[in-house]
Amino acid sequence: MQTDLQIAEYLLQIQAVKINTQSPFTWSSGWKSPIYCDNRMVLSYPEIRTFIKNAFVSAIRTHFPEACAVAGVATAGIAHGALIADVMDCPYIYVRTSAKSHGMKNLIEGRVNPEKSYIIVEDLISTGGSSLKVAEALKEAGVKIAGVVAIFSYGFPEASEAFEQAGIKVIALSTLPSLLQKATEMEYIGQSQWETIQEWQKKPSVWGQ
Amino acid sequence: MQTDLQIAEYLLQIQAVKINTQSPFTWSSGWKSPIYCDNRMVLSYPEIRTFIKNAFVSAIRTHFPEACAVAGVATAGIAHGALIADVMDCPYIYVRTSAKSHGMKNLIEGRVNPEKSYIIVEDLISTGGSSLKVAEALKEAGVKIAGVVAIFSYGFPEASEAFEQAGIKVIALSTLPSLLQKATEMEYIGQSQWETIQEWQKKPSVWGQ
Repeated sequence: MQTDLQIAEYLLQIQAVKINTQSPFTWSSGWKSPIYCDNRMVLSYPEIRTFIKNAFVSAIRTHFPEACAVAGVATAGIAHGALIADVMDCPYIYVRTSAKSHGMKNLIEGRVNPEKSYIIVEDLISTGGSSLKVAEALKEAGVKIAGVVAIFSYGFPEASEAFEQAGIKVIALSTLPSLLQKATEMEYIGQSQWETIQEWQKKPSVWGQ
Repeated sequence: MQTDLQIAEYLLQIQAVKINTQSPFTWSSGWKSPIYCDNRMVLSYPEIRTFIKNAFVSAIRTHFPEACAVAGVATAGIAHGALIADVMDCPYIYVRTSAKSHGMKNLIEGRVNPEKSYIIVEDLISTGGSSLKVAEALKEAGVKIAGVVAIFSYGFPEASEAFEQAGIKVIALSTLPSLLQKATEMEYIGQSQWETIQEWQKKPSVWGQ
């Protein structure tokens, strides 16, 4: 099975992804959505976690061969980023999207190596906001950025535009079309739900309001 | 070299630990301290990171043979915990010490397995507060706790008492005596600074006020 489809199947199997077109979820941003995705669940299933780790490393080597250091997006990307840095035997940092209220008020945790090109590791891309904040923090610190990798992306037009504007290349291991294909095969959704989700994807910020 | 001394040497080498008895540091708790320790620095040095990972796994297998799942303390313990779970090929979760303000308000991220015994992974033990908060959250969720492992512990009497009261066994890979021994050997500190630090350790909450 293709990697993107295999990951979609795993996410559905362990209910990291939940689909409900009848009673939509409300995201932290306030958006209504027929899909909720919690990729942190992956960490609790060693076989799936390792599959995703290897898929990440393979994607980085293919699409970002210049990357020789890893930056995890706090908090959901920290564990995945560390596992990737371990396989690649390379330096690791993690980056907050907002400074913690106490202590040294670092956005970047760990020690930056200005000679290395960093791949940003994210669990999930919706608007792309958190990856872009991390990219900004890294740029301000003089860090070279190879790009962004994520387990899953909803493929929202907003995100593509924002990344393009920032000049940042993004690769997601799995995407909405793969998820919908698998969810249909696994009989989680039917034709009408598929159509609802495709409507939602086009204008997620106003859907269901 | 013994593991505890080797780790102390690494921490000093990469300045994860800083010692200054003249101009003490102020911790986030408000305490004054002649030592500041940022074990997140370890993540940026692959060789040291791997040494500590292996030392963690060895300590867990020796002192907590029943542990077959890992819980990282957010955020500084998340990466170390994930690396340990990877070697042990076992389930992983991470735990916040306070609920985030938005979203699903989870303290525990990932999926808990109630049949497994979890080892809590912490970067640093000062008062033991964050480990104990995590232990409490896990107990409330019905999770079995094997104990706590940390890279470094200051060995404060407060912490020992708190852990004893909670009935939780703690193993630190390196401790203040090892750090002082190495810092002396490496000529980071002299006799009078050693004595100052030992005074501080006895009553850290009131020292330097």
